[in-house]
Amino acid sequence: MMKIDVLTLFPKMFEGPLTESILGKAIDKGLLDVDVINFREFALNKHQQVDDYPYGGGAGMLLKVQPIHDALKHIEEKHPATDKRVILLDPAGKPFNQHMAEEFSQAEHLVFICGHYEGYDERIRSFVTDEVSLGDYVLTGGELGAMVMIDATVRLLPDVLGNVASAQGDSHSTGLLEHPQYTRPAEYLGMAVPEVLMNGNHKLIAEWQLKESLRRTYLRRPEMLEKITLTEQMKQMLEEIKKEN
Amino acid sequence: MMKIDVLTLFPKMFEGPLTESILGKAIDKGLLDVDVINFREFALNKHQQVDDYPYGGGAGMLLKVQPIHDALKHIEEKHPATDKRVILLDPAGKPFNQHMAEEFSQAEHLVFICGHYEGYDERIRSFVTDEVSLGDYVLTGGELGAMVMIDATVRLLPDVLGNVASAQGDSHSTGLLEHPQYTRPAEYLGMAVPEVLMNGNHKLIAEWQLKESLRRTYLRRPEMLEKITLTEQMKQMLEEIKKEN
Repeated sequence: MMKIDVLTLFPKMFEGPLTESILGKAIDKGLLDVDVINFREFALNKHQQVDDYPYGGGAGMLLKVQPIHDALKHIEEKHPATDKRVILLDPAGKPFNQHMAEEFSQAEHLVFICGHYEGYDERIRSFVTDEVSLGDYVLTGGELGAMVMIDATVRLLPDVLGNVASAQGDSHSTGLLEHPQYTRPAEYLGMAVPEVLMNGNHKLIAEWQLKESLRRTYLRRPEMLEKITLTEQMKQMLEEIKKEN
Repeated sequence: MMKIDVLTLFPKMFEGPLTESILGKAIDKGLLDVDVINFREFALNKHQQVDDYPYGGGAGMLLKVQPIHDALKHIEEKHPATDKRVILLDPAGKPFNQHMAEEFSQAEHLVFICGHYEGYDERIRSFVTDEVSLGDYVLTGGELGAMVMIDATVRLLPDVLGNVASAQGDSHSTGLLEHPQYTRPAEYLGMAVPEVLMNGNHKLIAEWQLKESLRRTYLRRPEMLEKITLTEQMKQMLEEIKKEN
């Protein structure tokens, strides 16, 4: 069973996402145990203040090191034997990707630290194993980032997804964007399903799907093609695609 | 006031995130109106089925075009006059970034379509203005992606963030990662705040902050430096940093 602790000032944000869908099911099945901890409870000062003004001036407040450090010590005391990754959600961190989700899914215990509104006292970084950013955009806090990373990680755990094939055929796990897909009806407002998908010839279907995957990747995300090894068939299809477009 | 509609099969996932923090406050202040719509309500067949098997075979199910198209027509009838962006959350879409958040924040009405588990019937794409991916990782559904995009967008609206400066000084809005920051106490477990931040010399502090921003960006995300225009002072600092590291 994977153990996850989340340190946040907004524990209620996790209520919907943790009870619904895959995460809720994984918790119900006993594959996952999540504790959402309000680190304000660890503030030692009488107003339970968790932030303070930055040295040297500047707009906004910073999260203080003591409440977060004490919350981490509390987790360590409660789960001394687990192999932990302590993940700081931060725009200056390493951009999150599928490889990182796979790494996280191998860990026994993940601890996410979610800042909110403002920055962290630099010394908080000395207590973490990973500094991770969700992407090159600015969010109000780390909470949504932690939810995204938990979702991407937990769906890779054995027995979480009902259909194992679903976890493997997706965009970004093959290195190519997914080909167009169609379901019933065969025609909708004049838009028809391509003939090849209806004729039952599995070899032709597989070729069409591979070529359309390559086409979509070539047109939308050409840099992804540089990261994979192309077979002779794929190279030939790409030549055709370049002529066709 | 910005209008947001979200089409999802898991409306409860939005409960926590939409009532807490910045989004909850923006809604309370009347700056934002969000409707979360379960598009299963628009399924015409008697079991309210929203997905079906893909033509040509393959694992998993696809979302059908009719329920989503009818839900979009319903939104159009309810808000005929708004300038809409209809955003499909999809791993094969354009990767979300800060520039896109700024664009979205200029729109009057955003509609997010969240798939779940599986893919979309290709014809759904003909009804959208944007196909967007949160990043190069696979999620169980589009819900968390929509929440992230809403958060990144809404915090840019006038009057949403209390302190305007906070929206501007962040990593990714200046093109550089943020410099290290410190708050009280001056020393914690032997870790001290850098002297320069304590001496009150604002010129020296600003230089230190710029140099440390450049250092962090150079060490962690050197490709970001290629996208901004460097001043003479910044070029000189970078030379020093290269010698120092």
